[in-house]
Amino acid sequence: MESGSVPPGGVLEVLGWRDGHVVAIDQTALPHEVRMLHLTTVDELVDAITRLAIRGAPVLGAAGALGVALAVRQAQQHGWDEAQLAAAVKRIGDARPTAVNLRREAEATAAAIPDGVAAVEAAALATMAATVTATHRMSERGARYLRETCGPEPLRIGTHCNTGSLACLGWGTGLGVIRALNNDGGVRHVIVDETRPLLQGARLTCWELGQLGIEHYLIPDSAGPYLISRGLIDAIVVGADRIAANGDVANKIGTYSLALAARHARIPFLVAVPESTIDPATPDGGRIDVEQRDPDEVTHIQGVPVAPAGTRALNYAFDVTPANLVTAVVTEDRLITSW
Amino acid sequence: MESGSVPPGGVLEVLGWRDGHVVAIDQTALPHEVRMLHLTTVDELVDAITRLAIRGAPVLGAAGALGVALAVRQAQQHGWDEAQLAAAVKRIGDARPTAVNLRREAEATAAAIPDGVAAVEAAALATMAATVTATHRMSERGARYLRETCGPEPLRIGTHCNTGSLACLGWGTGLGVIRALNNDGGVRHVIVDETRPLLQGARLTCWELGQLGIEHYLIPDSAGPYLISRGLIDAIVVGADRIAANGDVANKIGTYSLALAARHARIPFLVAVPESTIDPATPDGGRIDVEQRDPDEVTHIQGVPVAPAGTRALNYAFDVTPANLVTAVVTEDRLITSW
Repeated sequence: MESGSVPPGGVLEVLGWRDGHVVAIDQTALPHEVRMLHLTTVDELVDAITRLAIRGAPVLGAAGALGVALAVRQAQQHGWDEAQLAAAVKRIGDARPTAVNLRREAEATAAAIPDGVAAVEAAALATMAATVTATHRMSERGARYLRETCGPEPLRIGTHCNTGSLACLGWGTGLGVIRALNNDGGVRHVIVDETRPLLQGARLTCWELGQLGIEHYLIPDSAGPYLISRGLIDAIVVGADRIAANGDVANKIGTYSLALAARHARIPFLVAVPESTIDPATPDGGRIDVEQRDPDEVTHIQGVPVAPAGTRALNYAFDVTPANLVTAVVTEDRLITSW
Repeated sequence: MESGSVPPGGVLEVLGWRDGHVVAIDQTALPHEVRMLHLTTVDELVDAITRLAIRGAPVLGAAGALGVALAVRQAQQHGWDEAQLAAAVKRIGDARPTAVNLRREAEATAAAIPDGVAAVEAAALATMAATVTATHRMSERGARYLRETCGPEPLRIGTHCNTGSLACLGWGTGLGVIRALNNDGGVRHVIVDETRPLLQGARLTCWELGQLGIEHYLIPDSAGPYLISRGLIDAIVVGADRIAANGDVANKIGTYSLALAARHARIPFLVAVPESTIDPATPDGGRIDVEQRDPDEVTHIQGVPVAPAGTRALNYAFDVTPANLVTAVVTEDRLITSW
């Protein structure tokens, strides 16, 4: 797949490589504005990643790869030495602490540096193409699993955060499963958590589902567990930012409460991820570094203060769901139901 | 207590009766503005209740009582017949479907109608005074229970929505327990759920805790269950809008997910309510009419759209927590640990 093309379903170019620079949708401007970013330096890319203009674990992996392609171009233009180039690669990998894909793909692409600029670009584009193919395979595997587990009736699926094309390229991870299931008429509607504090569900998932013509309803995050308890959701499908070696899942804050409610109501809790999200170097969820972000994201909503001036806040970006609450993990290669 | 006085702790007059009309803080304007409402007709009061300018189960009970006092004055001024007056009382009781206190106190006060305007006003003011006293008694009972259950160390308490003076007059219910515990040095800090969609936690609870000088941290609602799972919260204290005869608890959407997480982590989940919130006429939680409010409250935050135009939303105002997840209920009269 050519990096600059529009994926099926009408979603615009999420992340691409054009004439030696990175092109990306500014996801902080959606859904009200489709604003394209043109990033020519590592600093610009790291800034876009830090402020979540580029986000979602698999997209971050691809951004890590493209970032190295930017770095080698800058190195060539400005005569960077090896240490400067290595520092730039490290800066890319460190831009978000929890998503393992970012550092992994940056480091993997950096392995091509001795072979020159063209080799690095080719490696980065190959990473992107592989990411797209992987989403199709995991999506179809996840849809098959839900069919087999929940039966043939169209399902009411709950999801959290954004795990579609915007987060993952291709079809996405969690939203890819929903899309694959919908392609076979298997979706009645999707219940979308708004995903405070940054509202990726409200802003991005609703937008993607609208583009795909899949019926959906937005809810406050805290309503998901209750709707599950009332029998109004048949299955939960999410992505993940990291899965530890024992199967514990780090994902957007709010995932744990859905998993707990799903277990209580005995409905499937499915996690869709590329293999690269599974981190054998992290033995369990207790060892995952959970990013704490700026408290202003909690005390303000889209710039508007919602609490008294000076209110302190805790802003854990992720939570950790223990493996025993996860019914299944699907990847491009396999279905995992026990660890 | 005189109805127009400022309760201890610096909180302004939440709801009062002055020169034949109702005075109330407009809670939708907090924390940025302290705007007082002067309501002279039943229609104005019902409007204030509907748009949540006046809110919180015990305050709604008091508002129901004062509403009848307004109605008898209007009846006298405009020569309403018995049917018109009865219709006004019914309109007050029906202004919010889930809170049992509103209808109950409106109907109780209406029993004084045959005795004249002065008798109705006296009954309404007596209801308010009793509400204040009840909050002190339940607050101290709840604080004792937490001390006995959790030990002498200062506690990290999680709470949801607003259950303080603004919701309940006096000390409040859930926040009253926290206040009573804090009076004995028993609070390390409070973890405040923001309480989407209307952000009563962020806007009102943080404001009240600030007035009281109690250390607190705001979190997105979906973070509460995770913080509980990480051992960062010692007990959950909430109020309720209705408790069924079997102990099932209807409270602000998001309560259920906290109760589930509290049970999973084996920490106390305490509900503080006036006796009037317990409704023997409702056999179980499945029979509670859960109000569904305007979807715009979910798709917009303080007037700003957060989802693509036309997005549909589900806006359940309450959820139902089954009695088996509730460690204890405290009222002004008793501690209930089994039903």
